[in-house]
Order: sequence, then C-alpha cells, then structure tokens
Amino acid sequence: MRLLLGVLFIWNLNSIKAQQMEEKSFFIKEIFETALTKKMSYQWLYHLSEQIGGRIAGSPQSLAAINYTHKVLDTLGTHSVIDQACDVNYWNRGAKEEGNIIYPVKKSLSILALGGSTSTPKKGLTGELIELHSIEEIKANAKLIKGKIVFLNRHWNNKNLRTFHSYGEAVDQRVYGPNEASKYGAIACIVRSMTGSNDNVPHAGVTIFKEDVKAIPAVAIGIVDADYLSNMLKVSSVRVKLNTFCKNQGIVQSYSVIGEIKGSEKPNEIILVGGHLDSWDVGGGAHDDGAGCVQSMEVFYLFKQLGYKPRRTLRCVLFMNEENGLAGGLKYAKISKESGEFHYAAIESDAGGFTPKAFSYDIDTGSLKKYTPYFELWSDLFYPYDIKITKGGSGADIGPLKEQKGILFGLNPDSQRYFDYHHSVKDRIEAVHPRELALGSAAMASLVYLLDQTP
Amino acid sequence: MRLLLGVLFIWNLNSIKAQQMEEKSFFIKEIFETALTKKMSYQWLYHLSEQIGGRIAGSPQSLAAINYTHKVLDTLGTHSVIDQACDVNYWNRGAKEEGNIIYPVKKSLSILALGGSTSTPKKGLTGELIELHSIEEIKANAKLIKGKIVFLNRHWNNKNLRTFHSYGEAVDQRVYGPNEASKYGAIACIVRSMTGSNDNVPHAGVTIFKEDVKAIPAVAIGIVDADYLSNMLKVSSVRVKLNTFCKNQGIVQSYSVIGEIKGSEKPNEIILVGGHLDSWDVGGGAHDDGAGCVQSMEVFYLFKQLGYKPRRTLRCVLFMNEENGLAGGLKYAKISKESGEFHYAAIESDAGGFTPKAFSYDIDTGSLKKYTPYFELWSDLFYPYDIKITKGGSGADIGPLKEQKGILFGLNPDSQRYFDYHHSVKDRIEAVHPRELALGSAAMASLVYLLDQTP
Repeated sequence: MRLLLGVLFIWNLNSIKAQQMEEKSFFIKEIFETALTKKMSYQWLYHLSEQIGGRIAGSPQSLAAINYTHKVLDTLGTHSVIDQACDVNYWNRGAKEEGNIIYPVKKSLSILALGGSTSTPKKGLTGELIELHSIEEIKANAKLIKGKIVFLNRHWNNKNLRTFHSYGEAVDQRVYGPNEASKYGAIACIVRSMTGSNDNVPHAGVTIFKEDVKAIPAVAIGIVDADYLSNMLKVSSVRVKLNTFCKNQGIVQSYSVIGEIKGSEKPNEIILVGGHLDSWDVGGGAHDDGAGCVQSMEVFYLFKQLGYKPRRTLRCVLFMNEENGLAGGLKYAKISKESGEFHYAAIESDAGGFTPKAFSYDIDTGSLKKYTPYFELWSDLFYPYDIKITKGGSGADIGPLKEQKGILFGLNPDSQRYFDYHHSVKDRIEAVHPRELALGSAAMASLVYLLDQTP
Repeated sequence: MRLLLGVLFIWNLNSIKAQQMEEKSFFIKEIFETALTKKMSYQWLYHLSEQIGGRIAGSPQSLAAINYTHKVLDTLGTHSVIDQACDVNYWNRGAKEEGNIIYPVKKSLSILALGGSTSTPKKGLTGELIELHSIEEIKANAKLIKGKIVFLNRHWNNKNLRTFHSYGEAVDQRVYGPNEASKYGAIACIVRSMTGSNDNVPHAGVTIFKEDVKAIPAVAIGIVDADYLSNMLKVSSVRVKLNTFCKNQGIVQSYSVIGEIKGSEKPNEIILVGGHLDSWDVGGGAHDDGAGCVQSMEVFYLFKQLGYKPRRTLRCVLFMNEENGLAGGLKYAKISKESGEFHYAAIESDAGGFTPKAFSYDIDTGSLKKYTPYFELWSDLFYPYDIKITKGGSGADIGPLKEQKGILFGLNPDSQRYFDYHHSVKDRIEAVHPRELALGSAAMASLVYLLDQTP
C-alpha cells in the first residue's frame, strides 16, 4: 500500500509537472505569436534610428531618445517611469573629419574619428606612417614612433564562427593602441576598422587615453583604404594629413530611463530587461543598441497585450552611456546597492536585433547548482524556437549588478551580420528585419516569464 | 579475468569512439574555417545572379548557367562533369505586364504574370473583380464568377515561427486558384503575393492549368495594391484592365549539370548534393536557388582544398526546371533507376542562403532505426554550429530518389527573410550574406563527410 501510494504520488507529481510544462509552452507560443504579429519593436526602432538618429551620450539626440522612450514606457502598463540621472562625458565629433595621403600619391581616405580622439590643429596634422599590428609591436618599435602617425592594421579573423570572438581578438588595438602610441611620441593614430565586411566604410568606437598620457587624434579607417596604405608602405614611405574637429565637451547630466511594474507577490525581487539608449553619432544606432531598447520595451508590451501580471517586480532599464563610459550602468548599480535592492535576474540585449540563438548566463558558482534544473527545463521549452541556454557573458550595463548574486543573462542573436553595421553609418533601420527583431523580444519575454514563475 | 577483459574491451571501444569523435570534430572545424575564409560560393553566386541573371528553364540565361557551372565543376577535382538532357516547357514572359484599375478610379497596379499564365488579347482584357480567398470559396461562388476577374486575396499568416509554414498555408490559391476560377468561367485571375513583407513588390511562381481546363491570364499582385483593391471593393464595384504578353514556347531541350568524384572504396554508393539551376526570370535567383547550387559546388571545393578523398561516390547535381515542371529531377531519378544505381544519401539546399539551422531527414521507416544512432552522434557534432538533425522534408528535386531507400536530407536555413525575396525582383546578390551562404556549404560538406565515414 505504501509502495502504491508512493507510485501514485510520483505519477501525480509527473502529471502536474507535465501540465505545468504544457501551460508554460502554451504561453510562450502566445508570446511569440503576438510578437510576430504586432512587431511593435520595429515601429519604435524606426523612430529611434531614423527620426532621432545617432545618440551619443550628452547629445541633443540622446535627450530626445530619453523623452521618447519615457513616453512609450508610460503606455506599457508601468506603475512608474523615471529618468535616473548620471554624469556623462560628452564627446562631440564636430565637423566631418578628413584624411588624405599626400605622399607618394594624393588620395582621400575613408576615416572616422574615434570616440576619445582629440582634434588636430586647425590646419590639420601631417606625418609619416608606420604600420604596426599590436600593443606589443608598439612597445617593440618604441624608438621608431616619435613624431609619426602610427597605423594599426591587425586584420579581422574571418575563421571564427561567432563574430564576437573576432571582435574580441582585434579590438584592443583600437581601445588601447592610440594611448600606447602616444606614450612613445606618436602624433596621431589610424586604426583598421573592426569589421569582417569588405567595403570601405569606417567603424567608430571608443579609444581610451590614460590620465597621464597625452590624448592624440585617433581615427578608424575603412579596410579597403587600410589595405591600400599597407600595400603602398611595402614600396614607399607614406605621408598622411589628418583633420579632426572633435572635442571633449566635459561632464554633462544625462539619464537612464527606468520603467517599472510592481510585482504582485514578491515585489522585492527584481527582474530587469534592458539595453543601452546611447549609440555612436554616425548611423542610427539601430542594432547597437536601439534593438536592445525596443526589445526590452516590447517585453512590457507583450505582457500588457497578454494580460500577464508579474509576481516579481519587472524593470525595463534603458541605460545611458554604454559606448563611452558606462555611466548609466554604474550609477544604476550604485543606487540599487544603496537601496538594498535584490535583482533576482537581469537580461541585457546588446548584440544586435538578429534571430535569437541563445541566452548565455553569468552566475555565481555557488548559485549555479540551484538553477541548473531550471536551465534544463527552459532549454526544453526553448528548443522549438532554436534557442539554447548556455554559459557565457551577459551585458556591460548589467555587469555591475553581479555582486547582488542574481542571474545575469545576455541575449545572443545570430552574429554573422553584426559587424557589417556596428558603430558605422550603416547601422540604420534597413539593416534590421522586423521579424528577427521581434523574435528577440519574444525570447526575452519568455525568459522573464519563466524566471517569474519560479517559486 | 573474463570480466576484466570485458571492461578493457569496453574501455578501449569508448576510447576509440572518443578519438573518432575528436577526429571528426576537428575535420568539421576545418571545413567551417575554410568555408568562412574562402567564401567561394559568394563569388560564383555573384556571377549566376548578376552576370547571368534570372534563369527560367529553356531561356538563354539557363543555358549560360549550365555552361558556367559546368566549367566551374571541371575545376573542382571532379572525375567527370556531364550535362544530362531533359525536356522542359519553356514559358516566356514576353514584354512587361500591365495592370490598371479603370473604375472607380484610375491607378496602375504592381503585378507580375504567373508562370503558366497565358497572354491577354493584344489590346488587353477588362473585367469586374470578385474577391475570394480559397479554392472552396471559388466553388461556393461558382455562379458569380463567369466573365469576371477572380481576385484571390487570402492573407499570409505572420504568426508562424517558420515562414515555410505560412507559405504552405497560402500557396494553393496561386498554384490551383486560377485553374479553379477558369473552370467556372473567370476570364483572368489576380493572386495576392506569397510574402510576409510589407512592400508592394509582386512575387511570381507557378500556376497549373489542367489539360481539360482553359488557361487564362493569371498574375500576382503586390500586397499593398491587394489591400487597396480589397478596401475599394468594400465600397464599390471595381474594374481592372490587364495586359500580359506571356507564352508557352513549347518543349525545348535543357540540361541538369552533374559533377562526379568517384569513391575510392564504395564507388557504387552515391552521396548527392544539389540544388536547382533554374530560377524565375525576374531578379537573379540568388537565394532561389543560386544559393543551393553554389553551396553544392562549394562542398566539392572544400574537399579539394582540404585534400579529402571520398570513400563513396560524390555527385553535385544542379537540377534544371524545379520551378515549373521538375523535369531535371524526374529525369535524373529515371536514369538512375534504369542504371540500377543506389543513392546512399542525397542532400538538397533549396530554402535560401541564410544561416543554417537544421538538416531535416526523410527516410523509409524501416531504415530509420539503423540511422538513429548516427543522428544522435551527428547532432552532438553539429551542436557547436547551432545545427539540429530533425525529421522533416528534403527537396523537390531529390524527392523522386526516395524509392532507392537511401536517406534524403534538406538543408533548413533561418527562414525569417526568405519570403521577402522569393520569386521576386528582390532576389539578388545583395540579399545574400557571404558568411551565411558559406555556413550552409560548410554544413553540407560536414554532413557529406559524416555520411561518407559511416561503415
């Protein structure tokens, strides 16, 4: 009898479990169908990318984006929407930069000043090029650099399946190269664009000068022109003239936008979805990271459409200044810590609005064991949508929340096309597909729902 | 002792298995890296799509495509390349078709004659529209149709995750609608384009008239204009004038192109990779199915680059006339059967050159059990590449080979963007991403390799 009861008990449990799985699977299907039918994220992204445009932190466009997304969040069933102040360093490109080979031929170059670059003297700056490929090569050639323009030309590795790996392998020359070159007396720095694309469009991004190092003009160059320069350097010395007009306008106040839906059962446990509202000034910041912002807003929209009332508190956070300072993310974590908050989970979308392929989780080793059974369950539920749950990184803006020991997730979309557009004039709405974008929102909403349903 | 020997034997087997897995995994990595670095498929596709262009079976372009791919296959380590004759019905669009609303307003319409359509009288054809949505509605409204232009306007279902399901739900109105309308005396038929896209570009495709039914002019219409007509029909009768200039030019000889590498150990077991060389006449047939052709050729290219000598016989078959007759596929299977051949496996790529997500297998139930352990092994090997092995369909051209009781596979790429381009002027090289295309080739080459390595 005891055995029979035991069997019945297990059978009953399995049956309840199966029923719960079915319920969850049904609700996830509704989320995906609603996202694919309504495609609200694309309409918002059109406004952010095309009506407002590139939104570097501190710019008028970034303020317009704050106002716009605040208004949209007001309509999405939120209990509150606030603009959380943060101090950002406003870097301004000024007039369009110019680059020209002046010896041994005359030819204009496709360049773009890097965020953090200084301006050249008004009449421009002329120097001889020296081609190098890494921080190590700069150090090794320290004596040859003084008075020259350092041309950092390490190639993109096309072999990697995931293009973010190629970015990770290449990007140090852009972020730290100009600083290192300046240490040894370089007068400017030209860096090969971070892309696997074949065109000549230059890709912007941040370069960092340490406090004790003199900032110098630093520009990205299109890869066709980078190859041209490199070939020419094999047979001749090369002199280039640069004109940049950019300026650090100092600290200005900006804001991250935070929409909140209070949880009905566990209001002190927060589940965050977010992206970053700032972008580079060229292009429309459509994939980077307009996509992440509108997807996060669409999570709220989908719950409103489907009448889902969360048990935990949901926050949609559109962080300011991810691209060149992380002021929004750092400030948010600071205030959260001071308020004694607990983020049960945070999900960031900042890898483009392409078809979602995985959520990667970043979690304290101690807590991992507890969540492993959920990850297995969720993997099953996401299987029909070709979405994996894997170990990996989350997102720059939510990174500082890790000390709260919740689970951090990053949305990983298909990465094949991302670095064709990233930080360039090409990152516009036409590079985004409405269905692919909406699938990312649906994936995020589904994961929030599953997290919210845990006991 | 016996036990110990047994344990050692199993340990040894597991160790051999692990080593074989590692070897396989290593070779697959080499395949992917080579494909992503060389990207040969994209160069060939540029030629097919942009230099040659749309290649409807029987057209001069289709002959140019046969000559071009034959020459390329000659360079890919093949032991033979042949053009296999097949009889195709050459349908020719003639001059650009025209559609105009003539009552209650005057407005031109974005239309495209369907393959199989007849021409209107020289001065055009005018009639009143009747909007219907299915074959059933045509039957139910049989008495209202005579002398009218039937407008079939069933909408695309955006809810489906896989867009091929939406195509499957909608396409019968295009393939069989005009035939059904003609039965009841319709003078022409206008069919809503098969797309989930929001623009007004019409999408071609085949329509089939049975032998005892009079062929009538039949055109696809862009969905913006379809909605316009539908809205107008709610408040007024509508008269439309159509001019089509298309003609069936009768049977002409064409060819499928077959490249072969003889197997070193089991030459009588054939592994086929293929796509179809013909396309619609508008656009460049880049995704449909230039992609499948160049990916199949790239399988040979990759093996040549990596020095892989197949144990079984490999064939790259570029079938003619998939779009409107399947003459190439049927002829190939007929000759293969007559020659007593055995296709151990056949893989078709005919769903676009996007990031690969799965291979679906179509196999005799009796043979399934034998292959299930392989499918599990291969799923593990493809896991890092986000490619599943699933049950499903294969491809139209290789379908007739099923009676040989080998395994048929279809390559399933991400389908979100496919029907934006399919059968339209937009199916050009710029809709294809070189890396996504190459990943499909690499996936096919990897599967061929795994199939070839089975005992």
